[in-house]
Amino acid sequence: MVSSLRLPTLTSLFSPSSFARRSTVTLRRRLHLRPPLAAGSYAQSAASSPPETEDRVEGKKSSRVQERANTDRVITPRSQDFNAWYLDVIANAELADYGPVRGTMVIRPYGYAIWEAIQDYLNVKFKETGHSNMYFPQFIPYSFIEKEASHVEGFSPELALVTIGGGKELEEKLVVRPTSETIVNHMFTQWIHSYRDLPLMINQWANVTRWEMRTKPFVRTLEFLWQEGHTAHATPEEAEEEALQMIDVYTKFAYEQAAIPVIPGRKSKVETFAGADKTYTIEAMMGDRKALQAGTSHNLGQNFSRAFGTQFTDENGQRQHVWQTSWAISTRFVGGIIMTHGDDTGLMLPPRIAPVQVVIVPIWKKADEKTGVLNAASSVAEILKTAGLKVKLDDTEQRTPGWKFNFWEMKGVPLRIEIGPRDVSSGSVVISRRDIPGKQGKVFGISMEPSILEAYVKDRLDEIQSSLLERAISFRDSNIVDVSSYEELKEVISLGKWARGPWSASDADELRVKEETGATIRCYPFEQPQGTKTCLMTGNTAKEVAIFAKSY
Amino acid sequence: MVSSLRLPTLTSLFSPSSFARRSTVTLRRRLHLRPPLAAGSYAQSAASSPPETEDRVEGKKSSRVQERANTDRVITPRSQDFNAWYLDVIANAELADYGPVRGTMVIRPYGYAIWEAIQDYLNVKFKETGHSNMYFPQFIPYSFIEKEASHVEGFSPELALVTIGGGKELEEKLVVRPTSETIVNHMFTQWIHSYRDLPLMINQWANVTRWEMRTKPFVRTLEFLWQEGHTAHATPEEAEEEALQMIDVYTKFAYEQAAIPVIPGRKSKVETFAGADKTYTIEAMMGDRKALQAGTSHNLGQNFSRAFGTQFTDENGQRQHVWQTSWAISTRFVGGIIMTHGDDTGLMLPPRIAPVQVVIVPIWKKADEKTGVLNAASSVAEILKTAGLKVKLDDTEQRTPGWKFNFWEMKGVPLRIEIGPRDVSSGSVVISRRDIPGKQGKVFGISMEPSILEAYVKDRLDEIQSSLLERAISFRDSNIVDVSSYEELKEVISLGKWARGPWSASDADELRVKEETGATIRCYPFEQPQGTKTCLMTGNTAKEVAIFAKSY
Repeated sequence: MVSSLRLPTLTSLFSPSSFARRSTVTLRRRLHLRPPLAAGSYAQSAASSPPETEDRVEGKKSSRVQERANTDRVITPRSQDFNAWYLDVIANAELADYGPVRGTMVIRPYGYAIWEAIQDYLNVKFKETGHSNMYFPQFIPYSFIEKEASHVEGFSPELALVTIGGGKELEEKLVVRPTSETIVNHMFTQWIHSYRDLPLMINQWANVTRWEMRTKPFVRTLEFLWQEGHTAHATPEEAEEEALQMIDVYTKFAYEQAAIPVIPGRKSKVETFAGADKTYTIEAMMGDRKALQAGTSHNLGQNFSRAFGTQFTDENGQRQHVWQTSWAISTRFVGGIIMTHGDDTGLMLPPRIAPVQVVIVPIWKKADEKTGVLNAASSVAEILKTAGLKVKLDDTEQRTPGWKFNFWEMKGVPLRIEIGPRDVSSGSVVISRRDIPGKQGKVFGISMEPSILEAYVKDRLDEIQSSLLERAISFRDSNIVDVSSYEELKEVISLGKWARGPWSASDADELRVKEETGATIRCYPFEQPQGTKTCLMTGNTAKEVAIFAKSY
Repeated sequence: MVSSLRLPTLTSLFSPSSFARRSTVTLRRRLHLRPPLAAGSYAQSAASSPPETEDRVEGKKSSRVQERANTDRVITPRSQDFNAWYLDVIANAELADYGPVRGTMVIRPYGYAIWEAIQDYLNVKFKETGHSNMYFPQFIPYSFIEKEASHVEGFSPELALVTIGGGKELEEKLVVRPTSETIVNHMFTQWIHSYRDLPLMINQWANVTRWEMRTKPFVRTLEFLWQEGHTAHATPEEAEEEALQMIDVYTKFAYEQAAIPVIPGRKSKVETFAGADKTYTIEAMMGDRKALQAGTSHNLGQNFSRAFGTQFTDENGQRQHVWQTSWAISTRFVGGIIMTHGDDTGLMLPPRIAPVQVVIVPIWKKADEKTGVLNAASSVAEILKTAGLKVKLDDTEQRTPGWKFNFWEMKGVPLRIEIGPRDVSSGSVVISRRDIPGKQGKVFGISMEPSILEAYVKDRLDEIQSSLLERAISFRDSNIVDVSSYEELKEVISLGKWARGPWSASDADELRVKEETGATIRCYPFEQPQGTKTCLMTGNTAKEVAIFAKSY
């Protein structure tokens, strides 16, 4: 333990509430935090204004310290301790904070804005593909959950139950929705009568609750936000097409917006959603090379329609059970963005989902320079806002420009524009890229002339967007290794990489791999190599390669 | 009871689930439904295709009947039974349905689209006025609720409590948020240190739970959707300004978007939010002249900051408690829209929040007319969509044009465009207004030429928007009566109207009015008459007039 070296950074550790009586060590264990280390690259890389000394006293409130708390923390280097780095980034960039109840999370404005960017894109795509938004109640009668056998098995250990309402013990316990298939089917059964009512294609943006034991901000929390799509179709073919269409929407989103080169594929039977016939997934490689399941789309077959009697009269007058799908992406995706692109300096955001795409830092020393610089900065901000960009002008006088450079780099803003007195005279600005550190990423003398500036900034943002994706692709590809035997698989996994190999072995073998290596089948990727394949475990013929990896 | 005259219309009454074993009469009582009456103006007003006979058998499923169920129901005339009319409109227009748990509601796509229109407008206004969206967990430790004395008194009878999580009894019961002031203050206490952290202005879109005994779709449900704004300020003046600013945002929204001429004002002490110093409200008059509290904004003073120790260091280095506000609008507002504008035919939606602003109905008889008519209809749809309008082309062949006219009128679509073979030849269309029934609202020969058509349609939509507001204003004003004595007040209330009169009497007198008349002080309106005033109850001098009315 190195906690004595440096005091913890999360404001929640200083909570004056009833929870504060727990020691911070307990809290850290409770939240699976590791204490941040002493040497922080963020402070080290500060170009100016040396970091103020950390003089907090654990458990004691000092107002001066707190005033600085938000901005002068140190981020553990990513290479040193990925998990500590992740938590430091979330705290320092003010993405989220811990809620008072174990495993819950408060999503702060900067983190929520990333979620809003995800929503804005997907919401349009869902409507374009024929889905309507609606809202189902979050309280589900306990008996509903029990109707679909594998569903109850999968979810019952994770349920939060309401047993008291309006001061009275309830006759039937209510489940706080962990997912909505059951209540959706209860309602679909009332709305679907004929083939003319199909397909029925809906989506809801909602909160869901799963009583997880091991939590981690964004990645796995007791309550999280998501969208869940639910559809009903007249034929199995249509349901399959829909499930595939939606995993494709997610894949495009991941590549084009989040610059995350996910691998889309099919889950193994062992990893399939509780109640689904097939689960499609997008798997992302995080910076520590662990896999993150970033979105799933399920072909539910007739499992829920049989359990809930969701039938329709087909064109021949016959009653049939509907074929269904469900699909979801959650606030976990925000964790995926952090862990894909971040570096020792902090967050690095793809321009298309960055809450701030360009930060403008005015620089002056003498009083007589101030007006000119601030006017120029405002006019540059206006030009870029008019061009549809998300711009932040940081004109506070409480901080030095150097401090601001570091702060906004840590917050992952893709581009920084600096404007000083000399820039004002020459009618130009200095532009720095977040993804290329130091002088290499800095260009001087970009004209303030609106059309030139707008074009330059937009081109750079496009370049950053592409560059982040390319970098992630090359990281991913250099960490996936083809294996043809279990020995090779074990070695690759022990190196922290992903193993890809032909697989046609049993569920028992798959579980054995998990026990012995910690890795699971992430998916059978859609993209399959040509040629005959021999199962790495059994030596039998295999139809497909599977990807094995440790995962979140 | 007239339930034997006609069978019930809500699909939920035919639920095949475990809940179906309850008789429909029980269900109706449980849901505060009244059985719809036999004579329905909707079917009567059908211009063509006589309504098919209602041949359902209560409790028995007939697939043929169900196929027609959604569209051939009868709406109780509004004048006959306002409550039955309201529930019929919600069922027939597919705005919402009952959830499986008592008092919960499923918001269906058409109803949710109205909520989305509300969100789209307000979300922009909140950001323009400096607020950021974020998200707080919905589970609140029970001890939090107890910290603010009047808050716990107000909310504890309505709480839903989670007592079991992950299969285990919890050490501390968790409240499913009824509102978030407590958890917000718990977090604000950790984030606010200095005056430089103020003002802190946030908003969240979320679901909330209140264990209400008497529920009604949209108006009062066990779970509902809302936005809740929460702000913290350095001075009481700033907090007051913020509370007033937000009630003003709501007022403008109500007038300009929803065409609801709400009366903004201040709540009496008796009606003030549990934990607030002052509550501002917008009060709307529904079609039955009952008042609906459609939005509130609270000046919380230092009540929560003292309870939670939310302090900041001011510019002089002194520790002070912050001054706060909170404000909310919920899915209840959708109920307000229905009950303000609807008529015997069904829903009537203001164009600015209508999910469909223009419906296009192609009309043909002979096969050789079909292609020409459908092509023209598609091209008209395209013209209007390109102009940014929300357009629905109803080209299904399963229904007659007359049936479609009625259906979309019932759904409240502001404008209908009819296109038949003769219109195709003349290059023109027929346009009907939802707000002016029959021939008066119908205009022939509007050119299909894009610029002419677009201008005509947009002008008509603007006219409808204004006309709905004017109509609602004149209805409101003809139903508010100035009173100067308690006798007059009682008479006005007994006539179902609103009474406005000078008031400076005690809380006890206010409660007596409620007991004796069923009316409460809806607000002290911001707009006050000039001159000296004498309290209608006590004869003492009064500073203000108050508005009394029965309410939802």
